Parts: sequence; C-alpha cells; structure tokens
Amino acid sequence: MKTTRLAALTIAVTAALFSSQILAEQSVRHLPERDVTVPDTVSPSMQAVIGRPLSPIWREHPKSADDWKVLIARTAEARLATLPDLRERLGAKVEPTVIGGVKAYLVTPGSLPEGNRNRLLVHLHGGGYVFFPGESGTGEAIMTAGYTGMRVISVDYRMPPDFPYPAALDDAMAVWREVIKTTDPKNIAIFGTSTGGGMTLAMVLRAKKEGLPLPAATAPGTPWSDLTKTGDTYFTNEMLDNVLVSDDGWLGDAAKLYANGHDLKDPMLSPVYGDFQGFPPTILTSGTRDLFLSNTVRVHRKMRAAGVDAELQVFEGQSHAQYLADPTAPETREYLAELTRFFDKHLGK
Amino acid sequence: MKTTRLAALTIAVTAALFSSQILAEQSVRHLPERDVTVPDTVSPSMQAVIGRPLSPIWREHPKSADDWKVLIARTAEARLATLPDLRERLGAKVEPTVIGGVKAYLVTPGSLPEGNRNRLLVHLHGGGYVFFPGESGTGEAIMTAGYTGMRVISVDYRMPPDFPYPAALDDAMAVWREVIKTTDPKNIAIFGTSTGGGMTLAMVLRAKKEGLPLPAATAPGTPWSDLTKTGDTYFTNEMLDNVLVSDDGWLGDAAKLYANGHDLKDPMLSPVYGDFQGFPPTILTSGTRDLFLSNTVRVHRKMRAAGVDAELQVFEGQSHAQYLADPTAPETREYLAELTRFFDKHLGK
Repeated sequence: MKTTRLAALTIAVTAALFSSQILAEQSVRHLPERDVTVPDTVSPSMQAVIGRPLSPIWREHPKSADDWKVLIARTAEARLATLPDLRERLGAKVEPTVIGGVKAYLVTPGSLPEGNRNRLLVHLHGGGYVFFPGESGTGEAIMTAGYTGMRVISVDYRMPPDFPYPAALDDAMAVWREVIKTTDPKNIAIFGTSTGGGMTLAMVLRAKKEGLPLPAATAPGTPWSDLTKTGDTYFTNEMLDNVLVSDDGWLGDAAKLYANGHDLKDPMLSPVYGDFQGFPPTILTSGTRDLFLSNTVRVHRKMRAAGVDAELQVFEGQSHAQYLADPTAPETREYLAELTRFFDKHLGK
Repeated sequence: MKTTRLAALTIAVTAALFSSQILAEQSVRHLPERDVTVPDTVSPSMQAVIGRPLSPIWREHPKSADDWKVLIARTAEARLATLPDLRERLGAKVEPTVIGGVKAYLVTPGSLPEGNRNRLLVHLHGGGYVFFPGESGTGEAIMTAGYTGMRVISVDYRMPPDFPYPAALDDAMAVWREVIKTTDPKNIAIFGTSTGGGMTLAMVLRAKKEGLPLPAATAPGTPWSDLTKTGDTYFTNEMLDNVLVSDDGWLGDAAKLYANGHDLKDPMLSPVYGDFQGFPPTILTSGTRDLFLSNTVRVHRKMRAAGVDAELQVFEGQSHAQYLADPTAPETREYLAELTRFFDKHLGK
C-alpha cells in the first residue's frame, strides 16, 4: 500500500512539475535575432537621435568610489560643454544659490510674463542618482524655463558615492520646505526626468507622509519608479533603448550605490510601490523604445486607479528621455508645449 | 584636367556613399536572440493572457476567397461559443436589427440608468476587416453595454472577400446618418478596437468631409490607423505581441484584400494620415507589447498637435487588444471603468 501511494504521489508530482514546466515554456516568448531600423514616422532630427549608437558608457561598471568619480566628472564635462549654447538659444539666465541650506540654481526665463510672476517650478535633474552634479544638471531646467516662461529652481542635490540615500531626497525636501514659505504651493509644480521623475514622485509621497502641502502639479518624465529590474520593458526594450540600453550596466549598479543597503522596493526609492491617493494632477511622458516605458505606465495606471488626474504621453520611436535630446527637434518643442499647457492649466497665479 | 576632375568627383561620391553606409549601419539596432518571460507586474489573469502562445492563425495566408471564408467561419465559431456566458455574466441583451439598411445588433444593458436613457454608443468590431461577421462581432459591445450601462448599436458591416473597401465604411456611415435622426449626436460616442478603432477614426474623418454632425466622443482602442507596415512597433514588437504577432501574416494580406487596389495610405483606410482638426474628445488605449502601440501613439500625438482633447492609456505587458481578452481580469474592468468615466464626462443626457 505504502509503495503504491508513494508511486502515485510520485507520478502526481512529476505530472504537476511537467505540466508547470510546459506552461512556463509556453509562456516564454522566444524572440529571434534581428535588426531594427530607425522609423520614418518621426522628424529628421529625431531620426538622428534614435539612430545614435548605444550609449558608450552603458556597460561601465565602476569598481570603486574613485572609479565612479572619474566617470561622473567625464559625463559632467561633456554635458557642461553644451550648456552655453542652450542658455543662449533659450534666453535663460542661470544663477547659483542656496535654499534651505541646499545648493541649487535659479533659472530665469528671458521674459517672465505677468501671469507667471508668482509661479515656480522645482526641478530635479536626472542621471541615475550619480551623474550631473552642479551646473551640469541644469539643461532640462534651462529648456523648461525658456519654453514655459516660468522661473525654475533646479536642486543640486547630494549624490553617491559620497552621499547615498536619503541625502538626495533630504535635500529636495529641504528646498521644498523652504520655497513654500514664500511661494504658495498652489502656484508650484515639481518636475524632472528619469531619476528626477522618480524623485518628483518620492517628494510628493514624502510630503504626504510628513503632512506638508503638496504642489499643484507634477511632471515626472519617464520616471525611475522601480529601482529593481521589475516591469516588462526592462526586458522587452533591452538593447533597443540606445540611452539606458539595459539595467545590467551602470544603471543597476547606481541603484545599489544609491540605496546603500536600503530596501530597493521602499517607495522612497521605488515610488511605484507608494500610495498615490491624493496626488496632484500629473503628466507622465515616455517613448515606445524607452527601457522605462513600464516604469512610466505602471505609475500612470496606479495613479488612475487612485483617482488621480494623470495624463500620459508616449512618443513614437523614442528611447529613454529622448524628448530632451535635441532642443531643436519638433518633438522636443511638442513635449515642452504640453508641459507649458499642463502647468498653465493647473498652477495658480 | 578633365580626368583630374572626374577622379575628384569619384572620390567625393565614393566618400559620400561610404559615410552614408556607415551612418545606416550605425542607425540599425542589432537585437540579439532572447527569451522574454511573462511580467509579474500585472494580475494573475492577465499573466495567463500574456503567457498564451502565439496566435495559432497568425501566419495563415489564405490563397482564395474560399480559403478566407473557411478561416473566417472557423474563427467566428470559436468566438460565438464564448458569447452566451459573456451575455449572462454582463447581463446584456442582444437583438438583431437593421438600421439605415445595414445589419446591426442592439445591445441593451441589464439595467439602463435614468441618465443613460438618451445616450447611445455606436460600436465597430475588430478583426482585420475580414473576421467576426454577424453576432460573432458583438463581444466588445456586450462588455461595454454591461459595464457602462449604456445602449450599444454594434454595426455588422459588410466585409471582404465579398465586399472590399468602401463597403464597411459605407455601412458604418449609413448607420451614423440614421441614428443621428433620432438621437442627438451630442449624446453619442463611437468606439471599437483594432479595425473597429481604425473605422471609428475613419468615420469621424468622413463625417467631417461630408459635413455631418460629429459624435460627442470617440474611443478607438489600439486602432489599425496605418494599414501599411509603417511605425516603429510594427518592427520592435514583432514576435513579442502574441495576438497579431507580425504584419507579415494574415494581417498584411487582409489589408490588401480590404483595400482592393485603393491606396493603403488613403486616410479613409489609414486614418493616421487624416486631418484631426475638430475631432471630438478621444480616449486611446494600447499595451507595451502591442504591435499597434505606434498606430496608437502616432494618432495620439497627431490629435494633440491638432488641439484635440485626447487621452492615452497604455497597459503594462499587454499585446494587441488584451484589455478585452479576459472579462474577469482586473485590467479589463479598469479599461471599462475608464471608458465609462470618459463617456459619462463627454456625452450629453
């Protein structure tokens, strides 16, 4: 009897394992090797951006704090070189300042319309919580100030390797607590791209937790909302996105460097796991090739489920954050026009 | 002299060809072979849908009208078998009718709230302009009537192989001209998925052209807005989307069968090439693995550029139209809740 039962059990277990294995094999989508060309459904300037080779630094794996600092300095230098032309083109003025003890840049548009005098945008730059310290992180703020005609405070938050979590967020919150002393939060939006988008979300989650006033609107562009390699396009857009390319390069390393042992799924690090109830109106942006398309749409769906007035826009063919890659591209102007409309609609005067 | 000039020209031309070849080679993104698993960022029901094997019919290439009819009958039968359960689950009643000389189904929700008595939804079913004739095309109408609590007219438009373009659109317009005689167009929305989404767009373009009143809102779900293989995700999501899989299967054949020699880029066939000025408020839906993600976002961007109040939602991990694949999935309810809110906001009473 015992032997028979055991045999039956063995057969049952084997069958179960076998059928779950079949299921797993069916579930896996096998994608053949292939070459994908640049789509002709975007502007020539955007075709050039989409056609760029994979980011030359995507699979760097700095081994020490010093290695990181060399890479950070190199990328900052390249970015800084582009800023004088950008400032001139957009007619924006950039001044270093200190707000609530935190370094920041005040970016003023060439002309400040009467209706925007009492408005303020708070900007968090991107760069995986490691790149673009100091003035090198002001590019997006310059474009946004120039286009929206609104003043922007770009926060030069502290970053790893010297200052891991929660330094960056602490700095952003210190600036927030300070600016709402002099500007009505109903007249303020918070925005940023990639890490800046993730920080935008984390700031509101933390402001909610601390009982602080919330901004009137937020604009997280392709937010790094999940610091773990979780979400479909981390896999489906791998090697297709020419900006981030894969989580298995510097990106995944930067997540761990920033978290410094904290749980990567803590909503203060991966805000997609946060509670979006009561969030202000939000506009989210991504692209069809973006490694963070899932990071973006997962937040959008969670916000909609929580009843948030959340808009989504997804740009054809674009990899991560390419709506900022060429200030002269029609798609960049289109993106900034949407932001301008959105802020103008939701911000008080 | 002549020889020297010719030599110089030859060198210049060769250099130009060579550099453009280098550029072209750089622009191509080489994607290695790989296996992609089902994301765990969707509900278990949606994981089952996403994990389904590739559509068993995707690479059918019917060679004759009779071959098409066999395939059409087979798919219709399978779909019909699912409808009794769907009708019962949603509590909707389906009655055949004729409107403006065109066959249609009147789908009535189990309970019709007072505020919806004067409202009407016009539905165009999907199926590549060939599949789901007769009652087999009513599934989406049943779900939508049941969930929104609104009456739905589902148009059983004529299709190839017997009736190519413009029969389908002529039928849809005949229904439109008829229903606006008895229901205020301000109380009507037009909606549909895939081919139904493309037809929704084409109907409004044609109504504009003919000077007819427009509906109060439209909801094109992952619209077949471009009948040619144009747009990035036709390529990037090829073999990843388990529903359509590729344009190189029955889908591309169906486009040609329907067009019957007409220009595939005519906006009445590929509405993405139309003029969206003056379009009513529109909600567009797609998924990150959808072969028609580009078909969806290209329309969204064109609408936004034309100043249309156009919303976009993109569901995590979903292939083509999978927001309709399992009526019990939370994502399906989420989709239908968004549609309900949108119609309720924009339709008069």
